Amino acid sequence: MGRIDDRLAQLGVTLPTPPAPVAAYVPFVQAGKLVHISGQVSVDASGGIKGKLGAGVTLGQGQAAARLCGLNLLAQMKAACGGDLDRVARIVKLGGFVNVAPDFDPIPQVINGCSELMVDVFGDLGRHARSAVGVANLPLGFAVEVDAVIEVT
Amino acid sequence: MGRIDDRLAQLGVTLPTPPAPVAAYVPFVQAGKLVHISGQVSVDASGGIKGKLGAGVTLGQGQAAARLCGLNLLAQMKAACGGDLDRVARIVKLGGFVNVAPDFDPIPQVINGCSELMVDVFGDLGRHARSAVGVANLPLGFAVEVDAVIEVT
Amino acid sequence: MGRIDDRLAQLGVTLPTPPAPVAAYVPFVQAGKLVHISGQVSVDASGGIKGKLGAGVTLGQGQAAARLCGLNLLAQMKAACGGDLDRVARIVKLGGFVNVAPDFDPIPQVINGCSELMVDVFGDLGRHARSAVGVANLPLGFAVEVDAVIEVT
Repeated sequence: MGRIDDRLAQLGVTLPTPPAPVAAYVPFVQAGKLVHISGQVSVDASGGIKGKLGAGVTLGQGQAAARLCGLNLLAQMKAACGGDLDRVARIVKLGGFVNVAPDFDPIPQVINGCSELMVDVFGDLGRHARSAVGVANLPLGFAVEVDAVIEVT
Repeated sequence: MGRIDDRLAQLGVTLPTPPAPVAAYVPFVQAGKLVHISGQVSVDASGGIKGKLGAGVTLGQGQAAARLCGLNLLAQMKAACGGDLDRVARIVKLGGFVNVAPDFDPIPQVINGCSELMVDVFGDLGRHARSAVGVANLPLGFAVEVDAVIEVT
Repeated sequence: MGRIDDRLAQLGVTLPTPPAPVAAYVPFVQAGKLVHISGQVSVDASGGIKGKLGAGVTLGQGQAAARLCGLNLLAQMKAACGGDLDRVARIVKLGGFVNVAPDFDPIPQVINGCSELMVDVFGDLGRHARSAVGVANLPLGFAVEVDAVIEVT
């Protein structure tokens, strides 16, 4: 077990099986030291969290949805690093997309559900640049999607 | 003719003239081995495909629109590589934006129109990371926009 | 004073204090020669520009909002470069998000407010790849958000 695996155990986090892409693409691509990870939606083994913030989905549910995206990103990172999360040198950038009704705007608070997980798991190496926007819909109606750029050793 | 040009001919694909940006920016910028390509909309010589998925534009039309974005991306890649598409080492990331009515969610299926073209043309080197989201509108009302990060030799 | 500082003075541009992130992330992360800058909203010391294009916010206000995003990006770039904007080697990519009503589509014209500032300040080094999309809402209801990838020396 590596340092980050230990930290996940300490946090009580069990990573999901890396979700398979729902379409004609792959979960991640490495170019040089940068790995681009495909957008991960708020899915889990029991179906995940779907719907719109501001129209049925609460802020708390939205934050839980963003955390699910983060767990799926972690699972993809682990796969991208051949199983060794200690090879993650930095979370560089998260792109956060929230499925919203047009009048819902506490969008940063939603994406924090993913951002805070990264900092909990990786400490200072988990501190990332970020964009966060509210979109008209997401694949299969999921509540949140987050993609990532990370640096690996 | 290079290997990829042969493949395009085999597929019956004729690349468009690389579309000029509709505003104050350039079609692509290279930094190191990565080339960032500007978002390409679903335009072609006869006007392209405009409108919203779920409000007038069908899934099939959306997939055709995403393929148009892909053709425009290929044209920009060719220009970025000085005419030699064999210099494309990898399609790293596609960012797909679909112009949707708020209840339309088969968004991955739409963007597949672009993703599948990349795999058809480049084979395994065309397999990419991806995000796909539904947005409230796109430039000039086009149905789909896709931007890209590629690696070149 | 460096070359770019001189140019800013010549343009009559005073950079704002780099805005603090409104949530659990950092303003920028460098990986190799690329710096990813977090999405900057159209905020300034007097509150900035909020609302939707096509529903209360005019095109001119939207362009001013995009310029505010650009000023905030410049402030973050300066911080990322240890105060020396001459270290900016290239504006690589801008990702522009406009808060729109679903029928508003002159989205490129809005984001030009940011793009033109980059070219005014950096000249040819400011010419960038770009995506521009219309979204359902933005953090705290701001009118425009723009993130960036730049190359530094």
